[in-house]
Amino acid sequence: MEFISGIKEKETVSIYDIILGGDAVGNRETGIAMESETVRLNGAIHTIRDMSEFAFIVLRKQEGVVQCVFTEGSVSFDLKSLKEGATVEVQGVVAKEDRAPNGFEIRLTDIKVLSMPSYDTMLPIPISKWKLKTSLETKLSLRPISLRNIRERAIFKIQEGIVRGFRDFMFEQKFTEVRTPKIVAGNAEGGANVFKLEYFGKKAFLAQSPQFYKQTMVGVYDRVFEVAPVFRAEKHNTTRHLNEYTSMDFEMGYIDGFEDIMEMEQSMLDHTFKFLEKEYSKELQILGVKLPDVSKIPTVRFDEAKQLVSEKYDRKIKNPYDLEPEEEILIGKYFSEECGSDFVFVTHYPSKKRPFYAMDDPTDSKFTLSFDLLFKGMEITTGGQRIHNYDEQVAKMVERGMDPEDFTDYLMIHKYGMPPHGGLGIGLERLTMRLLDEQNVRETTLFPRDVSRLEP
Amino acid sequence: MEFISGIKEKETVSIYDIILGGDAVGNRETGIAMESETVRLNGAIHTIRDMSEFAFIVLRKQEGVVQCVFTEGSVSFDLKSLKEGATVEVQGVVAKEDRAPNGFEIRLTDIKVLSMPSYDTMLPIPISKWKLKTSLETKLSLRPISLRNIRERAIFKIQEGIVRGFRDFMFEQKFTEVRTPKIVAGNAEGGANVFKLEYFGKKAFLAQSPQFYKQTMVGVYDRVFEVAPVFRAEKHNTTRHLNEYTSMDFEMGYIDGFEDIMEMEQSMLDHTFKFLEKEYSKELQILGVKLPDVSKIPTVRFDEAKQLVSEKYDRKIKNPYDLEPEEEILIGKYFSEECGSDFVFVTHYPSKKRPFYAMDDPTDSKFTLSFDLLFKGMEITTGGQRIHNYDEQVAKMVERGMDPEDFTDYLMIHKYGMPPHGGLGIGLERLTMRLLDEQNVRETTLFPRDVSRLEP
Repeated sequence: MEFISGIKEKETVSIYDIILGGDAVGNRETGIAMESETVRLNGAIHTIRDMSEFAFIVLRKQEGVVQCVFTEGSVSFDLKSLKEGATVEVQGVVAKEDRAPNGFEIRLTDIKVLSMPSYDTMLPIPISKWKLKTSLETKLSLRPISLRNIRERAIFKIQEGIVRGFRDFMFEQKFTEVRTPKIVAGNAEGGANVFKLEYFGKKAFLAQSPQFYKQTMVGVYDRVFEVAPVFRAEKHNTTRHLNEYTSMDFEMGYIDGFEDIMEMEQSMLDHTFKFLEKEYSKELQILGVKLPDVSKIPTVRFDEAKQLVSEKYDRKIKNPYDLEPEEEILIGKYFSEECGSDFVFVTHYPSKKRPFYAMDDPTDSKFTLSFDLLFKGMEITTGGQRIHNYDEQVAKMVERGMDPEDFTDYLMIHKYGMPPHGGLGIGLERLTMRLLDEQNVRETTLFPRDVSRLEP
Repeated sequence: MEFISGIKEKETVSIYDIILGGDAVGNRETGIAMESETVRLNGAIHTIRDMSEFAFIVLRKQEGVVQCVFTEGSVSFDLKSLKEGATVEVQGVVAKEDRAPNGFEIRLTDIKVLSMPSYDTMLPIPISKWKLKTSLETKLSLRPISLRNIRERAIFKIQEGIVRGFRDFMFEQKFTEVRTPKIVAGNAEGGANVFKLEYFGKKAFLAQSPQFYKQTMVGVYDRVFEVAPVFRAEKHNTTRHLNEYTSMDFEMGYIDGFEDIMEMEQSMLDHTFKFLEKEYSKELQILGVKLPDVSKIPTVRFDEAKQLVSEKYDRKIKNPYDLEPEEEILIGKYFSEECGSDFVFVTHYPSKKRPFYAMDDPTDSKFTLSFDLLFKGMEITTGGQRIHNYDEQVAKMVERGMDPEDFTDYLMIHKYGMPPHGGLGIGLERLTMRLLDEQNVRETTLFPRDVSRLEP
């Protein structure tokens, strides 16, 4: 009988192995641990530069690129048979070379082809260039290839890091990770922007948010979080809207007020940016990202923010109950100028602008105990305290012309007891976009979905 | 200007605080660190047991339950005004009590009600009972409440732990976490079991798997994984099918063969079960789970497995190219009896039973370089090596009557170069079900979706 037991060690090494030494026993202060050693490594041909006497073959590996030197005679291999996109396993001697990426190059003695691409002339975009100087449209249409560019792929490593930082912090704060359904019978956020679905003869929807479920799970675990896709059938094609995006949600019970939620978010961001600095410094450097200071975040009331911006930038308030994108930008600008913060919590949004589950401010029910977090003038989070009392929730539904009968399952939690609680949702792609100073949220979405884009 | 900066410390303590001492400086070998101290803690009223002279009030907190002792006169509070599901903040003195959960109780001096439920007589199910002796149907219909049962919620803590263990291992093995779209233009797995969606006048589908995208991302990061929902419009309502479930996928490049994938999975399971043992011992104990040994997993060829089972259990082979559920169970039984393993890799599935992207066995193209992993006789994983060569992939599509034109975006990766690669998908709910010896996958799904169930 045959068994699978453990991962067999490979002959091939990684860039880390070469720099740090096979088993990463320690980083020699200077130099390359495996210098002068013969190594085997694999990768994709990122680019070939033929210098007539010799050629540079740059290998693309997950952890970076490796410069290999091909000299006629040293390798019994026809260089012309190789092209970008081929994958190979090479053998060669490690040589210190300060001008090469990571400070070393491989002087080739053998090339074994693992796979060959099948195109005729050249790649549709020059992915080995440092910056892809092509339109967003082209980049997105060729996403499977354009992502192979070193800068492009660094974006989504940083995005990975944001989620890791978020989760790490959530676990540290005793939140439980949950997975809630995306096919739902009703929708929490209301409005028309919901995708409909045929579900075995019944009408179903794609979840606009995990709202009902995360509140439900607070009744079970006190504190929960989820990182998952949400779906919004928004018809406008703006630079900041997506029809499918990743929402980082948390919800927490036993709060004293919605300030607890803002504190949790500020601390989470602080933790996450420190985590990025530590674990993703390479990618931050590739993209030239400067992490913002989030050790403290200013807060301002919604009505006050409108007033401040109106005065400072000489702008008329058109609608006292709504915030235009232009106003968000100016609020961001105001707090950047006045206290050097890229972030600002805008609190006490008007009740009519918040969903039925938002808790009204007991001192003035025109406003809610809620907030948005703006990052460089763009909303990346909506959060707040929720109604936990059954009668209060039913009354607010009725007031809005909703039928509580339609929400029996949801209202079960209020009926059988919920602690005071609240939470928030963070748009991952928007947060990434702002952090990287991108101008379009599609730049920081792996495979964006919008009104006109369903592929790739 | 006001600022949010850090999480304000609360007066209330957790169960861990009481046992280990406020700042968890160290666990006293015996005894309760905060013994005799007056503490404040919050929680939900899990149950009240009135013993006439005094009463036990059991608080439910995320980390466990706490026994509080209410004595008339010690607290100026009318016990009758309290009911199960209310949330409270109590004050009392910590006393060692071996018969109480966690070895201590709280002698109450104060009760502050945070929220009150609004039901009249009693909860629809007695959630404070150790085991919910109710039908699955009732349990699922009352999910928001039934999950508050200590055993029920332990199930989904273990599920959380499985995903954490999986992710931990993936990061350790240098996999990159990706998030791929769930609204898609075409579907990888084929067949009729796909949910259709109206997408701004276009036809769209819900992703049956992240197959195309994870392969695409191997071209970018060499190794990737994703934990996300997938959707299957299966019409049969069995004990092991769901219409929405969580798939733990990984895909890896530069493999020498599909054995690399099996090795990765076996090592991942080994890591994950050790992780559970370390971090989720409380929940494993609550549910009486015995973790299986996965230090080695037997492998057997598909055709050989059928033969073995047919001989040992005197069963006729009806269809040499398909595995019936009954046969899967017997294969599980066989390897349990013959080598004491709960797991078995069944390899070399027939080509006609595998999707178009599966790589055929070069020595016999009737079979593929693929596998399923059975756990106690049930398939929890499907995996294998994929075709990386463009011409080979196009040929297999044509052979199956598919039009390669429909897959231009997907075929871009083959055209511009892919390393030899493969991967797998693991059904999280099924893995949990098998681990906990549950008989229905709905028991290990937070809010299951099936033909008749779309709520809660």
